[in-house]
Amino acid sequence: MTLSSLSFTLSELSTAEVEASERLYGELADDIRGVVDVAIRTRVTADRIAAARDLVKQATQILAEDAPPEPAGIHFNAEGRSWNWGNAVVGVRNAIAPPVILHWDEDGAVRSEVDLGVAYEGPPGCVHGGVSALLLDHLMGETASAAHTRLIVTGTLTLRYERPLPLGRIRMQAQITNEDGRKVTVTAHIGPEDGTEPAVVATGLFIVPRWHNEGAVSAEVGSLD
Amino acid sequence: MTLSSLSFTLSELSTAEVEASERLYGELADDIRGVVDVAIRTRVTADRIAAARDLVKQATQILAEDAPPEPAGIHFNAEGRSWNWGNAVVGVRNAIAPPVILHWDEDGAVRSEVDLGVAYEGPPGCVHGGVSALLLDHLMGETASAAHTRLIVTGTLTLRYERPLPLGRIRMQAQITNEDGRKVTVTAHIGPEDGTEPAVVATGLFIVPRWHNEGAVSAEVGSLD
Repeated sequence: MTLSSLSFTLSELSTAEVEASERLYGELADDIRGVVDVAIRTRVTADRIAAARDLVKQATQILAEDAPPEPAGIHFNAEGRSWNWGNAVVGVRNAIAPPVILHWDEDGAVRSEVDLGVAYEGPPGCVHGGVSALLLDHLMGETASAAHTRLIVTGTLTLRYERPLPLGRIRMQAQITNEDGRKVTVTAHIGPEDGTEPAVVATGLFIVPRWHNEGAVSAEVGSLD
Repeated sequence: MTLSSLSFTLSELSTAEVEASERLYGELADDIRGVVDVAIRTRVTADRIAAARDLVKQATQILAEDAPPEPAGIHFNAEGRSWNWGNAVVGVRNAIAPPVILHWDEDGAVRSEVDLGVAYEGPPGCVHGGVSALLLDHLMGETASAAHTRLIVTGTLTLRYERPLPLGRIRMQAQITNEDGRKVTVTAHIGPEDGTEPAVVATGLFIVPRWHNEGAVSAEVGSLD
């Protein structure tokens, strides 16, 4: 497994500056989530579509006035705060991400609830099976990182699909079930908010890379997912 | 496995009307993909963000003038054309979807190449492992549907992560490797465009539901993913 292409960036931003920036650009991403959603559902006619497209292109032009081509990456500061604003699951600046917000329990389990609207559809009215895989992969990677105290990479991920998951508010949970040297096993499930039977059950094998204890990267930056 | 919540809708639209509509709303989704991308990368200041947000909200308002709350669903017409515009992977009206375009080979393999930009990031500069899972799940489901000649549901999906997948143009492929009664096994991989070693290798077990031959739904609508 080659990891040489991965890099984390030490930032000079203070945590207060990071949080102000997160609010500013996060609100923009929230507005964009709104237009993504309504664009799937709208039935307005061609002239109204043209008007909306014009506005979206104007917004794009403004944002492109200063926009380096690089992806957002993962950054951390001297205070131990890390951020991955472009992440496809948790990135607060990424309108593709719901975004998922994770809660670490004292017992090591990681939980999250999130609303999945029409943009996450697969079967009619249901969450795309691959979206469940996307969210569980991320949740399980963060769980294996033991609250960001070590870097991990995904080895294998196995998903068992038990029943359709209706669009709407979903709940998911993951926990470490075994550790054997550098191998960490995580189990997880995702299902409807009401806590009835899970829709998808998953097991993942995560690896703590050998260079973890060799000082090559900060141990504070967490999962690579 | 309960499938009662799934429904497909017979539409009175002609294929020509479907394609005109796909172009109209598809161009809007393309423009929105542009603003999703630049919103992750932009460094413009608070006043410019405010201006961009205002434009995005105006666009949302226009599109909301006539927008029923329902998800897009899966539709088909009497000519055998089907469409799932809201799908999180292939939906042409869904700015979250790249969208993936699938190519069926004569030998039954299904292939696709697609550009994955900064919105699909997980590890720095790389495709999120869960995004690979999302795309492979969809590709494999379509493959198991045997070019949309039968409905299938996902049973299990196993992914082996072999190396990071850099953002950019990716290539993926799937094929049926076994059929045993109602069980269909599909293998697949995803990797960089240059065709070097795959980043993720997957095996999926798909099920042809028992009601497939009972006339409950059209056999033309393909994968439920």
